[in-house]
Amino acid sequence: MGLKIGIFDSGLGGLTVLRELLNVSQGVEYYYLGDTARVPYGIRSKRTVIKYSLQCAQFLNKFEIDLLIVACNTASAHALETIKKNYPHLRVEGVILPAALEVANLKPSRVGIIGTPSTIGSGIYKKLIGRFLPNSKILQKATPLLVPLVEEGLNETPLAQEVLKHYLLEWENQIDLLVLGCTHYPLLEENIKRLFPRWEIVNSARPLAKALKPFLENKVNKPNKINLFFTDQSAFLESFLTHIGIRGEIERIEILRWEE
Amino acid sequence: MGLKIGIFDSGLGGLTVLRELLNVSQGVEYYYLGDTARVPYGIRSKRTVIKYSLQCAQFLNKFEIDLLIVACNTASAHALETIKKNYPHLRVEGVILPAALEVANLKPSRVGIIGTPSTIGSGIYKKLIGRFLPNSKILQKATPLLVPLVEEGLNETPLAQEVLKHYLLEWENQIDLLVLGCTHYPLLEENIKRLFPRWEIVNSARPLAKALKPFLENKVNKPNKINLFFTDQSAFLESFLTHIGIRGEIERIEILRWEE
Repeated sequence: MGLKIGIFDSGLGGLTVLRELLNVSQGVEYYYLGDTARVPYGIRSKRTVIKYSLQCAQFLNKFEIDLLIVACNTASAHALETIKKNYPHLRVEGVILPAALEVANLKPSRVGIIGTPSTIGSGIYKKLIGRFLPNSKILQKATPLLVPLVEEGLNETPLAQEVLKHYLLEWENQIDLLVLGCTHYPLLEENIKRLFPRWEIVNSARPLAKALKPFLENKVNKPNKINLFFTDQSAFLESFLTHIGIRGEIERIEILRWEE
Repeated sequence: MGLKIGIFDSGLGGLTVLRELLNVSQGVEYYYLGDTARVPYGIRSKRTVIKYSLQCAQFLNKFEIDLLIVACNTASAHALETIKKNYPHLRVEGVILPAALEVANLKPSRVGIIGTPSTIGSGIYKKLIGRFLPNSKILQKATPLLVPLVEEGLNETPLAQEVLKHYLLEWENQIDLLVLGCTHYPLLEENIKRLFPRWEIVNSARPLAKALKPFLENKVNKPNKINLFFTDQSAFLESFLTHIGIRGEIERIEILRWEE
């Protein structure tokens, strides 16, 4: 039997995490759930994020998965411990700790963190990185326009440059490394690099894939299989899949009808 | 017994409708429900918008209201008829028809409509206005960044100007009247007027209040009472209330715990 991995996100952003995992795995069955009927999580309270995250975990757990990945930074910030407590026999991984460890390895003296209002409000990135790098200066900022910017496919437009400058220009000479603390933001990475070529950039998808590589390696030499579930139809799904370059076999795309 | 009016919206935007109603009413008890746990509706499918709207109507109907106002353009576009069918003895009003009638009265020869992807996708504004003004040119456009822009309190910043120019500059000499087809957009009205002083602007809140004036007038000479319910805590509520200038007595603000 091959490995089965469940992944959930508030919407489409977590597909950037799936893409990184596909790059380092073979013969894995992926079950991805995007809660597009209630996206974005990043503007909601901790209580609501926990409630929604538990519903996502419950759905994915039915597929007898070996590993559950919380591919949403906001859900990782608020709900990871509650999910682990509810599923004590399931391995559960979030995106925040691997990203914070990656930052610690790079030892920057000045770090900037961007994310949704809810992730930044939790302070978890700042606390973790501060623990690993107690002598570094750490700045953080909520950047709520970036998710709709990516969702609207505006990431390559001049407007994206304007929005990024609005949020980040004041950090130009204040930081050496930027943490992209939201799974939507990798789609803006090239844009940020052009604007601020001096900065190192850590996105939260790659470090997780790197950390899981030993677990994913040496599996059966077969293509990955991908099952995609969403709680609502999304006008952006097709272009999003193409844009981020999801590879491997998509077995099915299903729109769920929850609570009916 | 005074009049009881229920109002619902996907989030905070519908408070601009409440404000217009407060301006023309006395002694009315208002019950406002903002579905902040699932905002925004404007990116969701028709089916999901109908489902959420029926849950909102059901909640407000418990207060024995005399009138239900669907203060969200997206819900008005997709769910109004279904709500009416489910509550045949309740007067139910949406925001789209009054706005379209207001446009018809002004007889512009070139009209532009902006709204959420879901409202614009429904084509309802274009269809209605086209029926009233068959010889007018009608353009429409989804402007999904405007809701998060307002929600983040960025409506008075230079970035707001950039975003508005991104969407609207190509219409500068193509339209004479702009319809703000989303209850968040009145907070950008002054900004739009500065950028495009030649345009007439119809927002969807004022025409509804005007249409309901005869129904609201001659009521008891007492202050209005306001009950506010939300499905999630919102970091923006206080500043939003101050910013739009909600007047009258706020009896209570309650965060609901649905589906638990």
